[in-house]
Amino acid sequence: MHADMVLINIGEVVTPPGPGPRRGRAQAELRRIPDAVIAIRQGQVTWVGPRTAWEGKATAEVDVGAAAVVPGLVDPHTHAIWAGDRLNDFEARAQGVSYEAILAAGGGIYQTIRHTAGASVETLVALARPRLERLLRSGVTTVEVKSGYGLTPEGEIAMLRAAARLQDEVPMTVVPTLLIHVPPREGREAYVEEVVTSLIPKVAREKLAVAVDVFVEQEAFTVAEAERILRSAQRHGLACKLHADQFHVLGGVELGVRLGALSVDHLEASGEAQWRALAESQTVATVLPGVTLHLGGTPANGRALVDAGAAVAVATDLNPGSSPLFSAQMALALAVRLNGLTPAEALTAATANAAIALGFQDRGWIGPGSRADILVLNARDWRELPYALGADDLIQAVYVAGQPVWSRE
Amino acid sequence: MHADMVLINIGEVVTPPGPGPRRGRAQAELRRIPDAVIAIRQGQVTWVGPRTAWEGKATAEVDVGAAAVVPGLVDPHTHAIWAGDRLNDFEARAQGVSYEAILAAGGGIYQTIRHTAGASVETLVALARPRLERLLRSGVTTVEVKSGYGLTPEGEIAMLRAAARLQDEVPMTVVPTLLIHVPPREGREAYVEEVVTSLIPKVAREKLAVAVDVFVEQEAFTVAEAERILRSAQRHGLACKLHADQFHVLGGVELGVRLGALSVDHLEASGEAQWRALAESQTVATVLPGVTLHLGGTPANGRALVDAGAAVAVATDLNPGSSPLFSAQMALALAVRLNGLTPAEALTAATANAAIALGFQDRGWIGPGSRADILVLNARDWRELPYALGADDLIQAVYVAGQPVWSRE
Repeated sequence: MHADMVLINIGEVVTPPGPGPRRGRAQAELRRIPDAVIAIRQGQVTWVGPRTAWEGKATAEVDVGAAAVVPGLVDPHTHAIWAGDRLNDFEARAQGVSYEAILAAGGGIYQTIRHTAGASVETLVALARPRLERLLRSGVTTVEVKSGYGLTPEGEIAMLRAAARLQDEVPMTVVPTLLIHVPPREGREAYVEEVVTSLIPKVAREKLAVAVDVFVEQEAFTVAEAERILRSAQRHGLACKLHADQFHVLGGVELGVRLGALSVDHLEASGEAQWRALAESQTVATVLPGVTLHLGGTPANGRALVDAGAAVAVATDLNPGSSPLFSAQMALALAVRLNGLTPAEALTAATANAAIALGFQDRGWIGPGSRADILVLNARDWRELPYALGADDLIQAVYVAGQPVWSRE
Repeated sequence: MHADMVLINIGEVVTPPGPGPRRGRAQAELRRIPDAVIAIRQGQVTWVGPRTAWEGKATAEVDVGAAAVVPGLVDPHTHAIWAGDRLNDFEARAQGVSYEAILAAGGGIYQTIRHTAGASVETLVALARPRLERLLRSGVTTVEVKSGYGLTPEGEIAMLRAAARLQDEVPMTVVPTLLIHVPPREGREAYVEEVVTSLIPKVAREKLAVAVDVFVEQEAFTVAEAERILRSAQRHGLACKLHADQFHVLGGVELGVRLGALSVDHLEASGEAQWRALAESQTVATVLPGVTLHLGGTPANGRALVDAGAAVAVATDLNPGSSPLFSAQMALALAVRLNGLTPAEALTAATANAAIALGFQDRGWIGPGSRADILVLNARDWRELPYALGADDLIQAVYVAGQPVWSRE
């Protein structure tokens, strides 16, 4: 007995032609197949091509009419688990209050840490689930979720346990990352020591995360601290990621490249040396336009990164303080406006390259051997996806591993 | 027999305290009533206040739980009727092609004019309706729709007839404006003459629009031409509006103020003289952050306008070329990020002041005598409305004139 073969009839399939990383000019290359069929068996694409060329047999057929289909989006950088809110900060910032004054008044990231560290795993799951469901409706079929508001090792573990529970509550793949985010206000050396000797080994042993991320910045960790933490991660079989060059060029990008990190993320302050280092590496350059829109300032130069030859990804960076962006479609659309990508480059950034930023070669594209993660658009022309701003009905249906997990109406 | 009285129980009502225009510091003043009730009769609010103070009798009650309620949003500047698309332009611009080259290749605004002028009224209605429905789901209870892609008098009339038909197809109020948008490539003097002597009188006679708008810009109309057109509008009992200072300060703002225009819109290039002129006038200053996000460039300085004492409104400017922004909630949220308004000022900009930009004193606020246009938020704290980016479920229900016209699920 062989497994069911489902055939989907489609107006046009538009996809990166194969797995990432897709760098330089290849980032703009898309395979476009009008009047296409996708054949799916056991959650995988087995064939895609023109309807007229299909010669197999299917046990079931689905017809999406003239709609365009693209790969499911991958959101490779979120902080979707948090408690409390930052609405007071938002209002104060808009009224011209400085970040320092907000921190002094008990706001800022330490407020989120206080609320998150004080919440139960159940509460964290209940708070994060509707956020992931928003991302799903925006087209996300694989999402990274970072810890980083727990601060204490117990708090970080609780966040990662919440991420693991979320995997049972939402249909997309949830990828947990241990984020070493900000040092405690006192005892930072002892904290790094504890992360390296206790937290990372425990996270690896219990398989609570697949990667470790460190925020390298003046108010966060130094390059030397990050290197110590990430080398420990590698010794324990975990992948590396970095928040780097958000405000200052401190060497985080170069460290990531040296360690073979999956990705370095932010890059607003990066310049030619960093673009070149990334172009010559296997590390994905992830841009986060939601931060630029929310906080202002200079966006990461996605155009220069692509032109230099780097593989660029885009993420929502969903978090309450610096990027309350609940839509991967909008992140993709903002990458065109703020980071200088073309629509085709932005699609690759949100699919094939974003998948590589999480270590996946089997998704972010549609072709034989890919996981059957697909979006049916409420449009004949796939470019509506990067083009439209604030349209709530661009995505008609979401398939994860061949299963229709969400559809409009 | 007296009419039904419906009572809505609400977590918190947040509203400008009365009709616009609300200028300077008053733009940030909001009335907040926790544990409130709104009493509605014959489509109007008759009473709003704390539940414990309510002493009337109701024939029906609705309970929205702990949700916050704000006035329905008013979108006072859209070009929601068009045919064709501008996806090729979008892609070309992102690839670095100049606007001049796009025009030369048959793209740009003349492409939209070509497609729109060639479409039937039925086609225009069918194309615009889903756009207005998107706006409705984003919270819009009154929307302005401009002509301006018809070019010939017949084409403009067809667009206004489409706007009139749309009023029968969507539940929000549709306010039609005759826009004199761009001059024909040849015969501009004759065109202005025809507008003044024939088109405007006909539009007024047949009540096809309530206002006339002129685009004052180097590539569009001069101040002298605009004055001639708008004085004709006034002679025929129509209100005035202007697109002014988008790229160049040419005197459009000063003309609008002199004529007592309802609003002047854009203002990206305006400076202190224009801010002051608006502050000393009854004319609303309407900012359009979607254009800034889509095209780049400097946003209108909403902060300076409010501080100078102007009444500031915000609109989507929904159009295919310069602002494919289908959400008034997002326009409101962008006004905080791009135009420097506070969340409270942005709410007033999208409600009470936007209503005045269309000549309405009876909406954009919730209180005795206002039309019962209300939004039930999917949030306890109204600030989620300006805060969240890309969230598709912020609005739980929309009431127009006391009737629930849309709700989630």
